[in-house]
Amino acid sequence: MDGNRRVISDGAVLVDGSRISNVGKSSEFHERADFKIDAKGMVILPGFIDTHVHLAQAMMRGCADDTSLIDWLQKFVWPLQGNYDAQDGKASAELCMLEMIKSGTTTFLESLLHSRYGFDGIAESVQKSGMRGVLSKTVMGLPSYGTENSIMYPGMIEDAETCLHEVESHFKRWDGKANGRIRVWYGARSLGGCTRELYERIAKGAQKLGTGVTMHLSEIQEDVRYAKKEFGMMPAEFMNEVGLAGRNVVFAHGVWLTEMEWRILADKGGSVAHCPSSNMKLASGIAKVPEMLQTGVNVGLGCDGGPSNNCYDMMREMKAASLLHKVRTMDPLTMSAGTVLEMATIKGARALGQERQIGSIEVGKKADLIIVDTRKPHLTPTFNPVSNIVYAGEGSDVDTAIIDGNIVMENRIVKTLDGEKVVRVASERAARLLERAGLDIVPN
Amino acid sequence: MDGNRRVISDGAVLVDGSRISNVGKSSEFHERADFKIDAKGMVILPGFIDTHVHLAQAMMRGCADDTSLIDWLQKFVWPLQGNYDAQDGKASAELCMLEMIKSGTTTFLESLLHSRYGFDGIAESVQKSGMRGVLSKTVMGLPSYGTENSIMYPGMIEDAETCLHEVESHFKRWDGKANGRIRVWYGARSLGGCTRELYERIAKGAQKLGTGVTMHLSEIQEDVRYAKKEFGMMPAEFMNEVGLAGRNVVFAHGVWLTEMEWRILADKGGSVAHCPSSNMKLASGIAKVPEMLQTGVNVGLGCDGGPSNNCYDMMREMKAASLLHKVRTMDPLTMSAGTVLEMATIKGARALGQERQIGSIEVGKKADLIIVDTRKPHLTPTFNPVSNIVYAGEGSDVDTAIIDGNIVMENRIVKTLDGEKVVRVASERAARLLERAGLDIVPN
Repeated sequence: MDGNRRVISDGAVLVDGSRISNVGKSSEFHERADFKIDAKGMVILPGFIDTHVHLAQAMMRGCADDTSLIDWLQKFVWPLQGNYDAQDGKASAELCMLEMIKSGTTTFLESLLHSRYGFDGIAESVQKSGMRGVLSKTVMGLPSYGTENSIMYPGMIEDAETCLHEVESHFKRWDGKANGRIRVWYGARSLGGCTRELYERIAKGAQKLGTGVTMHLSEIQEDVRYAKKEFGMMPAEFMNEVGLAGRNVVFAHGVWLTEMEWRILADKGGSVAHCPSSNMKLASGIAKVPEMLQTGVNVGLGCDGGPSNNCYDMMREMKAASLLHKVRTMDPLTMSAGTVLEMATIKGARALGQERQIGSIEVGKKADLIIVDTRKPHLTPTFNPVSNIVYAGEGSDVDTAIIDGNIVMENRIVKTLDGEKVVRVASERAARLLERAGLDIVPN
Repeated sequence: MDGNRRVISDGAVLVDGSRISNVGKSSEFHERADFKIDAKGMVILPGFIDTHVHLAQAMMRGCADDTSLIDWLQKFVWPLQGNYDAQDGKASAELCMLEMIKSGTTTFLESLLHSRYGFDGIAESVQKSGMRGVLSKTVMGLPSYGTENSIMYPGMIEDAETCLHEVESHFKRWDGKANGRIRVWYGARSLGGCTRELYERIAKGAQKLGTGVTMHLSEIQEDVRYAKKEFGMMPAEFMNEVGLAGRNVVFAHGVWLTEMEWRILADKGGSVAHCPSSNMKLASGIAKVPEMLQTGVNVGLGCDGGPSNNCYDMMREMKAASLLHKVRTMDPLTMSAGTVLEMATIKGARALGQERQIGSIEVGKKADLIIVDTRKPHLTPTFNPVSNIVYAGEGSDVDTAIIDGNIVMENRIVKTLDGEKVVRVASERAARLLERAGLDIVPN
């Protein structure tokens, strides 16, 4: 599939260094390649772009299922997170990236890295993994609202000045590293986790550094109540007022955003990361995605985290997104396979401000490509490859992943990370973490 | 996991012939086995039971996505189905069974076999595949209601007397064959596809043969309007009146069933096959499953068909079922991983009247077992194996499938069907079918 979402049968892609230098019918290729990958019977797609992940939560997969959001946060997620050390952070990030690569994600937006996860260790792992990643460092201060921060786990509280300082120092050290694969953003804790002044400082900081900001917004109804009470306006309306609704901003979830707020985002350029599986599993509600798209909001897709989804598989997330909105609107024509594939690729690129570099297969763009093996019973026959991939595909159908021109996975073997070791280390550390946090996992 | 849904760590299962002869801690096993499967790092589960599939639709996968239900049926599904011959039916059934085995389904209820698909050929394929399957032969007569039968594709119309006669003759030839793996049921076409008298004859026929009946019921709101207009009552109320609401009856979908109808089913014993992916994708609506379960209705899970889901993967269907109802009810505690796993196993067995034979790992039951390989990034760590399988698992995590004591798949290689040939034949036949039906597939 090329940049216009055309399906080219018997197609080929030529890569020169880190970039795509030709796309078309293989019969029309006259260049001599040093090296060829035979993709016969397979489909070449742009790599998936996950616009909302928590790397450090992969190691918490399945720790808190079938529980209320409050219990989920207070009894499981925070106590575990609050006991992480930098080695845990790194182990979880590598587990997460291994899973993402194996299911076709080539770029991600990590939305909240706490200092205790160890930023440098995680950035080193991103570099090693070969992935393209935006790393957002948590910024928080003056915890204020009841459902969340007033009862926040002590180990999760950070100081505003230190946070702001750390973003700048991480940015200087890491932004643009690994041939531009690594970017550093601000990750605002949550609506009630920062003061108005802190939001304004984040907005100015991001402008000064020329970087982005991501935060959870209107994932839960509480955000709406809080914004009305504290600021006398709706959440995105307030974020716009503090200068955080522009093209460098990604709001995760946006479940409770209203039409007035969509118009602000459509106007100012801010993106939404839609996380259907997480919103369904935590019963957060259903974001009005077709309506947002219709209004002109840029909406990407996100897998969220290990305890909320519980996997980082964009293939399955595309199907969830399509099906959820078809049944919500009672319209089987909405959120077509093509639409959700765009959300998982070019719209994700746009959310990250990288739409000129990634998100489609076009000459001059970075060679971030995946090859999906369709010679499988559940992908047979191939009346329509886009339908098959979106509605019948699963992460393990991805055979090959190329990022920045490098083959990161071939024949399902990840070349950049030691898969067996990553799985073993994460298992061992997860068990020790549970002990340290003094937790028992409740059986379903 | 044993029959009480206990997770036994370091567990083992002993199989003698077609049956389970011991379950427990492997350290407590003293029997000498002729043959062992090493399931270290894996989870042994009862095989999944899919209570609503269309074998003949696997070969129509992706033919009609993102279209309205009427177009879906009239422009794509029926014209394709109406051009099937017996070789197409067999090819599609084998493709479907290959996919089901590879994703851990060991038993299925096929809900509507048209004469033109070739019953004998399909039954022979079930025998060869090693699967346990209930094959329902379509019964229809006096097509009557507008959205469906009055415009039915000519090639899909069958005669009532012939249908009834065929069920009896198929039953005599096949029911109980393959060591009891094959059962033959009545498949009533749809609410408007049979007359009251025909329903009564189906009920009597099933009673005489001691067999079951399945049909689509209240998948669409039209069923409610039709039942009220034609019979002056609700769909399940009418089915009860004609003697079709008992323990030998499975209603597929049940999206629009009301509380009064749940009570009838809870009282009389009829089951519902819940098909969340299909209902979402076709925008049929959301069946009130937690409420039905609460009322005492037996509800199994179904993957439905290639153009409606578009895959036959019970692992993914369990997650869809859980998440859909969590968000619908805004209650993250509802439809826990354990609940949907029961729907996919023991409640499915109960729907098929085989709960004494299959659906759980218990001494004396048939050895229908699957082994899921959890040593994968997306299934790490293992805080809770049930959560991991339901929320993070995908069909391709199933490593081994044992049905009736026979190893049908080992290390993902299906031993009973020639996978490559099945995929190739289905692809070729699907292409020819499209030509014969004179169809172009609309791109999304």
